[in-house]
Amino acid sequence: MADPESDRPLVRAGPISAWAVEGLPEVAAGEDLGRLALEPLGRRGLLAGDVVVVTHKVVSKAEGRVFPLSAFEPRPAAMTLAAALGQEPEMVEAVLRESRRVVRAESGVLITETWHGLVCANAGVDRSNVGGGETITCLPVDPDRSAMRLRSQWLAMAGGGPLAVLISDTFGRPFREGAVNVAIGVAGMPALSDHRGLRDGQGYELHASTIGSADEIASLGELLMGKLDGLPLAVVRGLTWSGPEGGSAPLLRDPERDIFRR
Amino acid sequence: MADPESDRPLVRAGPISAWAVEGLPEVAAGEDLGRLALEPLGRRGLLAGDVVVVTHKVVSKAEGRVFPLSAFEPRPAAMTLAAALGQEPEMVEAVLRESRRVVRAESGVLITETWHGLVCANAGVDRSNVGGGETITCLPVDPDRSAMRLRSQWLAMAGGGPLAVLISDTFGRPFREGAVNVAIGVAGMPALSDHRGLRDGQGYELHASTIGSADEIASLGELLMGKLDGLPLAVVRGLTWSGPEGGSAPLLRDPERDIFRR
Repeated sequence: MADPESDRPLVRAGPISAWAVEGLPEVAAGEDLGRLALEPLGRRGLLAGDVVVVTHKVVSKAEGRVFPLSAFEPRPAAMTLAAALGQEPEMVEAVLRESRRVVRAESGVLITETWHGLVCANAGVDRSNVGGGETITCLPVDPDRSAMRLRSQWLAMAGGGPLAVLISDTFGRPFREGAVNVAIGVAGMPALSDHRGLRDGQGYELHASTIGSADEIASLGELLMGKLDGLPLAVVRGLTWSGPEGGSAPLLRDPERDIFRR
Repeated sequence: MADPESDRPLVRAGPISAWAVEGLPEVAAGEDLGRLALEPLGRRGLLAGDVVVVTHKVVSKAEGRVFPLSAFEPRPAAMTLAAALGQEPEMVEAVLRESRRVVRAESGVLITETWHGLVCANAGVDRSNVGGGETITCLPVDPDRSAMRLRSQWLAMAGGGPLAVLISDTFGRPFREGAVNVAIGVAGMPALSDHRGLRDGQGYELHASTIGSADEIASLGELLMGKLDGLPLAVVRGLTWSGPEGGSAPLLRDPERDIFRR
């Protein structure tokens, strides 16, 4: 008989050790990130049960998602919105092309729902000025697939697994100051832990019964990688998980069930 | 001359090790949590630079913030809201007493701004059924002060510090499924890291320039403590920080600047 508990996704931690991976060379468009990372990852190696957190920016670069800002010829909708927000029309055009819906556009802030279903500022588009030209970096087209591909390249190093790979980005949040890292791509582990209906040791019912475990692991990745050191990879050791995997989709709230998107 | 950078709060991580603390006895109202935790914390000890994450529930219990549900005689506003939401009037009364403002009340969900300025479901009030009677657990009255008091009790074990203590709770989030732990009380470290105006190793401007570091550490605490094991303490080793401390207040977005509270 099937164990109904086996369908419950759960992520647990024993004692954890975690570190940023040093020594990844500069990654250019079209380069094989998974292969480039083998040597740096191999310095400490991977074990079964490890989770590798990868910042989306290095994935986006490898996948050729960096574009000159001037490539985004603003259409009328972007012109209007840019004027209202006090932003550059080309940047707003890029954000709108990455989005299926504007969630908020006010006080200079443009929050959209991306084609992936992510809700974040500027559709995750980062603007930068590298080598004199304005460029933008867009999110990977399919971060779950990016994570799956990296996982398959690193699996042998982890003795065949279990091994999980998370692609992270840094998102602001309603109500709270300070952005935190979340998981926009998930491979090899469940994204959520489902504690619904369970009770803790003292018989308390668990009021927050679904936990965004992959987001919490991505946040640990942010602490390790920082923002200044340019370290796009971190390894977290000591987690265990069970239950079905399903990419990052379980972390996306159905817009129809979201009281903040109505 | 003063270094202007010294005013910048920054939290960094080297390699991290982290674990849940086992062996804390059941804590009853009025008991000295800080003293009760000395022996369990002492098994592995504390070092300068450690961060201790404490779930709010054990703090609330020690501080006598557990009440019988029947103590909350519903007033008319609670009766009306409870009927609209399909919730129990006593529970809604308790939530309203803990709140200065209702942020959303729809689809069975009651999100308020607490007297602390936290925005969360049910003002952080947890309901439970222990020993046959319905009880509720409210957030600590002043979680920063609770964190400070615990820190002062544990400081000697950490050789006089630096030592930080975070009080955590599990909050749901707009747009994303899965709750995550955040820091509702902070002592001994800055709550945010401020990277504004800085550039990363590749010259990219940092688009998410203020990071909710204490929330990210609290999220790591959740992974370690889980929801089922009843382990209310975790230690994170390997962080460093600089800049001014200021409790948890820097994590609270000013309602006037919050486009999701208008």
